[in-house]
Amino acid sequence: MKSNLFANLPAHLPEELCTTLLHAADVRIERIVSRGHVSPPGFWYDQEQHEWVLVLQGAARLSIEGNPQPIEMKPGDHLHIPAHQKHRVEWTTPDEPTIWLAVHYGERPQR
Amino acid sequence: MKSNLFANLPAHLPEELCTTLLHAADVRIERIVSRGHVSPPGFWYDQEQHEWVLVLQGAARLSIEGNPQPIEMKPGDHLHIPAHQKHRVEWTTPDEPTIWLAVHYGERPQR
Repeated sequence: MKSNLFANLPAHLPEELCTTLLHAADVRIERIVSRGHVSPPGFWYDQEQHEWVLVLQGAARLSIEGNPQPIEMKPGDHLHIPAHQKHRVEWTTPDEPTIWLAVHYGERPQR
Repeated sequence: MKSNLFANLPAHLPEELCTTLLHAADVRIERIVSRGHVSPPGFWYDQEQHEWVLVLQGAARLSIEGNPQPIEMKPGDHLHIPAHQKHRVEWTTPDEPTIWLAVHYGERPQR
């Protein structure tokens, strides 16, 4: 019935591992595991849905288009990325898996 | 722009502390901080929305109506509680704050 977000981490991670934890009509919750992975050069995510993202373990740097500096993300840090706000992952630590929780949803946030 | 889930933990917590992190039409993300708090005797939550809940820190025991045993929750453990599935918090550790992340949403999950 319950699962654990820190379980089932593969020893080798040739690509980012993305696991859907919940998928409902307007909401999708994902666990993403990175280990040194970054977005390809020049690639920007441009998503149809809003995204609320939380770092649970590890460390990352995220760029938001138009922001002069990347945002440093450490465990507990969370961020809202509105739909079509272009963003990319500049860096994730190679020292340990970085575990993200992402909540994608379709409606405009009220706050 | 970013916030941290482990920040702004009050030293004294006479009641559970519930902070809304995001509120959109069909989705509400909350941080709940408990320290030894439990549901009142005989009280069961009976919610209109589905809830996906994750323990980030601490330890808890959650009862689901009809389940013979409470569910032990430790950091990383997550659980889906369908709307109107009665549940209650039997125990949270008195030793440290227990930090929950709850995603409430309105649509029937597809998985």
